[in-house]
Amino acid sequence: MRPAAARIAAASARTFAASSRAPALTTANLNPAVVTAAYAVRGELVMKADAFREQLHAGGAKLPFDQIVACNIGNPHELGQQPLTFFRQVLALMHYPALLKDPRTAELFPADAIERARSYLANISGGTGAYTTSQGVKAIRSEVAAFLKERDGGVGAREEDLFLTDGASAGVKMVLNLIVRSKADGVMTPIPQYPLYSASMSLFGGEGVGYYLDESKGWGLTKAELERSYQAGLAKGVQPRALVVINPGNPTGQCLSRESMVEVLQFCAEHNLLLMADEVYQTNVYASTPFNSFKRVAVEEKSPVSLVSFHSVSKGFLGECGQRGGFMELHQVGEDFRAQVIKLASISLCSNTSGQIVTGLMVNPPKEGSPSHALYTKERDTILASLKRRATKLSATLNECTGVRSNTVEGAMYAFPSITLPAKAVEAAKAAGKVPDVFYCLALLDATGICVVPGSGFGQREGTWHFRTTILPSEEAMEGVMQRFRKFHEEFMQKYA
Amino acid sequence: MRPAAARIAAASARTFAASSRAPALTTANLNPAVVTAAYAVRGELVMKADAFREQLHAGGAKLPFDQIVACNIGNPHELGQQPLTFFRQVLALMHYPALLKDPRTAELFPADAIERARSYLANISGGTGAYTTSQGVKAIRSEVAAFLKERDGGVGAREEDLFLTDGASAGVKMVLNLIVRSKADGVMTPIPQYPLYSASMSLFGGEGVGYYLDESKGWGLTKAELERSYQAGLAKGVQPRALVVINPGNPTGQCLSRESMVEVLQFCAEHNLLLMADEVYQTNVYASTPFNSFKRVAVEEKSPVSLVSFHSVSKGFLGECGQRGGFMELHQVGEDFRAQVIKLASISLCSNTSGQIVTGLMVNPPKEGSPSHALYTKERDTILASLKRRATKLSATLNECTGVRSNTVEGAMYAFPSITLPAKAVEAAKAAGKVPDVFYCLALLDATGICVVPGSGFGQREGTWHFRTTILPSEEAMEGVMQRFRKFHEEFMQKYA
Repeated sequence: MRPAAARIAAASARTFAASSRAPALTTANLNPAVVTAAYAVRGELVMKADAFREQLHAGGAKLPFDQIVACNIGNPHELGQQPLTFFRQVLALMHYPALLKDPRTAELFPADAIERARSYLANISGGTGAYTTSQGVKAIRSEVAAFLKERDGGVGAREEDLFLTDGASAGVKMVLNLIVRSKADGVMTPIPQYPLYSASMSLFGGEGVGYYLDESKGWGLTKAELERSYQAGLAKGVQPRALVVINPGNPTGQCLSRESMVEVLQFCAEHNLLLMADEVYQTNVYASTPFNSFKRVAVEEKSPVSLVSFHSVSKGFLGECGQRGGFMELHQVGEDFRAQVIKLASISLCSNTSGQIVTGLMVNPPKEGSPSHALYTKERDTILASLKRRATKLSATLNECTGVRSNTVEGAMYAFPSITLPAKAVEAAKAAGKVPDVFYCLALLDATGICVVPGSGFGQREGTWHFRTTILPSEEAMEGVMQRFRKFHEEFMQKYA
Repeated sequence: MRPAAARIAAASARTFAASSRAPALTTANLNPAVVTAAYAVRGELVMKADAFREQLHAGGAKLPFDQIVACNIGNPHELGQQPLTFFRQVLALMHYPALLKDPRTAELFPADAIERARSYLANISGGTGAYTTSQGVKAIRSEVAAFLKERDGGVGAREEDLFLTDGASAGVKMVLNLIVRSKADGVMTPIPQYPLYSASMSLFGGEGVGYYLDESKGWGLTKAELERSYQAGLAKGVQPRALVVINPGNPTGQCLSRESMVEVLQFCAEHNLLLMADEVYQTNVYASTPFNSFKRVAVEEKSPVSLVSFHSVSKGFLGECGQRGGFMELHQVGEDFRAQVIKLASISLCSNTSGQIVTGLMVNPPKEGSPSHALYTKERDTILASLKRRATKLSATLNECTGVRSNTVEGAMYAFPSITLPAKAVEAAKAAGKVPDVFYCLALLDATGICVVPGSGFGQREGTWHFRTTILPSEEAMEGVMQRFRKFHEEFMQKYA
């Protein structure tokens, strides 16, 4: 033992009884709510993929692939999607306003980007380096309110009900933190679900109450299943307080019909549940069903339901994940609730200013007639058309593989195909101490460098196996990725036939 | 009742027993951990100041001042501090990399800013729009590790122990979430303290165990008081698991001597406490005592203590609050702990990229010999010299007022003067249903537009009253602000004499 440590240990032994020393921090005594939380989107598969990536980067690695294809997470820019030019022009001017004083800037930036930056700077006291109010810049909330009114066919929105957040996740966590008091409080979440919900529920010490989406009906939801789930929650001593709906679905890619949405609202009204509407994929709709917001349907149906809805700059055709921008809207939640959300937001001071600005740009893009409108429209339509082609191609190719079945990807950025694994594969997985779909996904990663997320990370009906893959590899890359997938899959199926 | 609501209510009444309805969400049944959390830095005073600001903005308000002086929060850019040019040049290029392809950019941006942006872009897969790894961009963590080694006189740091966070707050919250399991778990926090700690402890359901800083000794801390506090925690059934030290102090502005730091380390070793070192003001040192990091002292003293330290881009001479950037370093915490922090970080996906980039720039500013070095040095030194002058002026002026006593502001951005309130003022406060220091601060705001935070929001010895004010009004504004303060104060003291 080194002298200082020895001195300290001696002093400790001399002065204090053993009982006055806190035990060392290990998994055994860290907060079990954290220890038990799982977050598959960045779990075992991803850590292994990261290790492969470092091996490839370092060179000399003997791997059967030369790159990792990150289909585990909806991170479009990482796979080559380009940002929207106007958005980034405004961001650059906001961060370096000295440019606005230089005459050469008018040659490098279009007039409407310069005008927008000036207008934001006039409304953001101290620029991008200052804390904003905890709810977010008022002028941007005002743009969001105008966007919502337009989106929702004239149904109005109030600035004071809007919160600009670091991505949608931050908003979801604030609401869950506010409604979950103990294990006796439940939140109904879909199975399969985006694991933000299960992980946050675990962190806040509440209980997830799962309701199944019906794979055989395009991952639809039914009131009967909601009712079963609710009663099952009560039966195990858990009072559901809120219902989460993800529309368009993640990981399941379905778009809810208006009829289903009305049923959900009725169900929430009957049980007095807060409805949490995760609508971050609202512009990622490839089917003919138009997107309806729950807010719009709730108002049109005169539903009394309390509703919080979430949107994000990370998805859509922006894919601005790294900016961590988004907003949530409170609707009919009561003043108590709103005041507590304001306080929670204030404890984190404010969301980051780049994310707030990108949120403003998302909801108020260049208007027709402005210099940047044509380029913006072209970039938007190109990205959306490409996503739609990739969605179609991906589910078609998956369905050509033996024992793989994928529903149509109607929206969002994912397919969630089922895989009928041979009994021998299930046995081999058990022998390896792995859940069968994890075993399958690890084998896929080892053979091809393609990283997807096992269905067990999202929840699935017992005895069924799935994985989630994004539709995000570029169109040039997609063909090769699908070929490698198909080759791996057929070999895997033969090996364990 | 409207038809849809009536239909729903009827359906509800028909199908479900009252017992199967969750009660409506009100303060009475929201999470009490959230409801009881308080966050004074953005509390009652600030809300009133915001309302005044809107009145002034709308025009026609008859108020005895024409602007709000926000001394409630360390938000330098809001009060006119300018960002560092190099930092913002790099940020602009990172967000709009198309500039890097334009030959005119070389006229508008210095070569080292262009070079730095290129280098970051080569190391940030997908640019600022992509999620980074949950711990933060590896290349930036590598810059942080090099900075720490330089700062700490050669004591090394490892990339894998570093986490890039949305400001320091996000890191503090992750650690508290991980160590607090129930009301039986305590965290020792200074009184007065930055209310992030008390608010987060409340949110995570743990118990704050306060130790007093000694106002009569320049807000110093003593091992005897730490010991008293620890034993008081045990006596009420709370096992302290961690000790928070804020150095330089917030709200108290003191700088710890190396001797005091060694005592703190010994105390933590004796009781096996995790030391949480909030060192976000490490470059805001106006006294002759040099800043020592706890990491450095711990390594030099061969202390076995587990330590997490925090830094931020919001403070120092950057004041880049709105970017929400910062980092934390784990030291001797064990692999279990580190793995859980990685998981917690992954549930929020990643911190925002602008904040990560500003963190990289903070720790790796332009080097001597590079084109931007002279300007960077000038901007830095100008801001720090001005802060030092303001710190001196502020405490001197406060000490000239009847019944006001301020310690020297040795560091950070705040003074925390005591005010000896006349008995009549205390009675008037009670009659108005206000804590006396809140009453005083509200009167100050009403009379002058100066917004400070009452001492009760930070904690103080019973029967003493304080407020926290930042030193951040510009030097041009400072004289007027201090005059208005002094006039208010003397009138207040006379009124209640």
